[in-house]
Amino acid sequence: MIIINNQYRLASRPKGLPKDSNWEYTNESVRELNDGELLIKILYISVDPAMRGWVNEGKSYIPPVEIGEVMRALGVGCIIASKNTNFNTGEYVSGTFGVQEYFISKGAMITKIDPQKAPLPLYLSTLGMPGMTAYFGLLEVGKPQAGDTVVISSAAGAVGAVVGQIAKIKGWRVVGIAGGKEKCQYIVNELGFDVAIDYTAGDIIDALREHCANGINVYFDNVGGDILDAVLTQIAIGARIVICGAISQYNNPDKIKGPANYLSLLVNRASMQGFVVFDFAFHYGVAIREIAGWITAGKLKSREDIVVGLETFPETFLKLFNGENFGKLILQLSES
Amino acid sequence: MIIINNQYRLASRPKGLPKDSNWEYTNESVRELNDGELLIKILYISVDPAMRGWVNEGKSYIPPVEIGEVMRALGVGCIIASKNTNFNTGEYVSGTFGVQEYFISKGAMITKIDPQKAPLPLYLSTLGMPGMTAYFGLLEVGKPQAGDTVVISSAAGAVGAVVGQIAKIKGWRVVGIAGGKEKCQYIVNELGFDVAIDYTAGDIIDALREHCANGINVYFDNVGGDILDAVLTQIAIGARIVICGAISQYNNPDKIKGPANYLSLLVNRASMQGFVVFDFAFHYGVAIREIAGWITAGKLKSREDIVVGLETFPETFLKLFNGENFGKLILQLSES
Repeated sequence: MIIINNQYRLASRPKGLPKDSNWEYTNESVRELNDGELLIKILYISVDPAMRGWVNEGKSYIPPVEIGEVMRALGVGCIIASKNTNFNTGEYVSGTFGVQEYFISKGAMITKIDPQKAPLPLYLSTLGMPGMTAYFGLLEVGKPQAGDTVVISSAAGAVGAVVGQIAKIKGWRVVGIAGGKEKCQYIVNELGFDVAIDYTAGDIIDALREHCANGINVYFDNVGGDILDAVLTQIAIGARIVICGAISQYNNPDKIKGPANYLSLLVNRASMQGFVVFDFAFHYGVAIREIAGWITAGKLKSREDIVVGLETFPETFLKLFNGENFGKLILQLSES
Repeated sequence: MIIINNQYRLASRPKGLPKDSNWEYTNESVRELNDGELLIKILYISVDPAMRGWVNEGKSYIPPVEIGEVMRALGVGCIIASKNTNFNTGEYVSGTFGVQEYFISKGAMITKIDPQKAPLPLYLSTLGMPGMTAYFGLLEVGKPQAGDTVVISSAAGAVGAVVGQIAKIKGWRVVGIAGGKEKCQYIVNELGFDVAIDYTAGDIIDALREHCANGINVYFDNVGGDILDAVLTQIAIGARIVICGAISQYNNPDKIKGPANYLSLLVNRASMQGFVVFDFAFHYGVAIREIAGWITAGKLKSREDIVVGLETFPETFLKLFNGENFGKLILQLSES
């Protein structure tokens, strides 16, 4: 039986926002498995801001996706054939499977997951990379202390929503920055944030001054740009800024806008620290167990934004950058 | 007897480089001392980059100098009259005395110094604020480890020269960035830096790549701007950037140039931290004893750039910003 694998490959490196012409929709037949290999039918593909960085040329924390390569992406799938004694047909796994329908693995760098314990998409959101990013970025890099005010940008996003909920569980004061009424109501009413600031609705510095009267102790930054600069004007002595991402700058065709107010770090004896979640991989198990416990206890909510159809990838990806996406963006490969 | 006190007062807040019109040269007679007070005849005035920040409006780590106030400056002087039992005529002291010839103190926030142990100007340089800034910024904020490469900007300056020499005493590899052949030769031949990079002589990124092949572990930044951005492209995993100052930006009449390459902090799991030396005041004694020991042992050299005459202050101050100054800039109030 011939299985056709539809795929998105990188056709050219985007300048600014990715265009349709940066992708090539290809297909190939799935080859026979060699000993030790297994065949995964991909069910869900994670669509992440980090993917924008992976298609840029040059040194980063992982090599760039090369022109002609299948686009890199995390995913969840089901094993439909196996010549690997550690993996059986019918088991579910997560890993870096790419933007395609099938993936042949040697069994390394993939994780078995249990669809009885949580719906599959959760393994790409709160129990996956965004959840890990939130957990370790907040607790190991930001390290808030009792009485701290934690500010989060992209607060209704896949990472930000988890950061804020963990901070509330831990007892800290949480101020979320998000775009639009709906997201702001969601993070306060559904997720229990103390305050939401709608960056589309007024001056952010004024709002931060009002809602963080004693200054910002920890800022978890997903966006960079003007919001990072606004926060820098309102940090407290000894503040910690966690650089998780800079989605406002990823498609900037000019030079990235650096934080003009960075000397506030000096005045306030503050620090700005970057991190890469993979460094904490050894401790994912601990984080997953703790987050799963909070979900079961009803203390932590997860929201997924699921779009159906591999062929929608180029346009679905853009939802990350226009503020349209609400919750963890995931591509579902078939309705079933 | 009437004593006339000549002074420089802040006439208006500079925009960009300070102009003569930003200062007012005034004089007043020294009033009678009250009980508990002492009169200091100022001998040396410290001319520091931080003074540029003190004349800007707005919140910082200390209140700004107000219009009409005597310009704030550190100094060294001799007590010529005392109604304070803790201080005697003929004793030498350092403190924040201002850009003037005489200062009346209540005896608080001043430190007795011994001209037998070190020449008086040293108490404004290596044994004063620049020395403390270098010591605590490098050892307590930068925290280099065995095998680290430490890069320092403004490396022939009052702070940078001490940072580099302490780093060499501790056994780390030291690369200094300075402007011009003379300064570069000085830091290598006189101070023992491993490498000097002349930022006026070629591409800094190329030079950093050549001389820091394994990446930069600690960067002690005195300048900000393009040099900070160049260093950010060459940092090692886990690098620490110490934000001590940003002299390239202090006179920028536009918005300060933020580090466009700050996302290198993310890729390299690196941090950027600011500090204010006053926070370490409680530990100055330890640092002074250790630095004085190194000076006595011939391990640490100090260079002062002494200009004579209070009336030269407006033009002497500018030497800090045009690269002309070489060593700790100090104003000597009289030839004697």
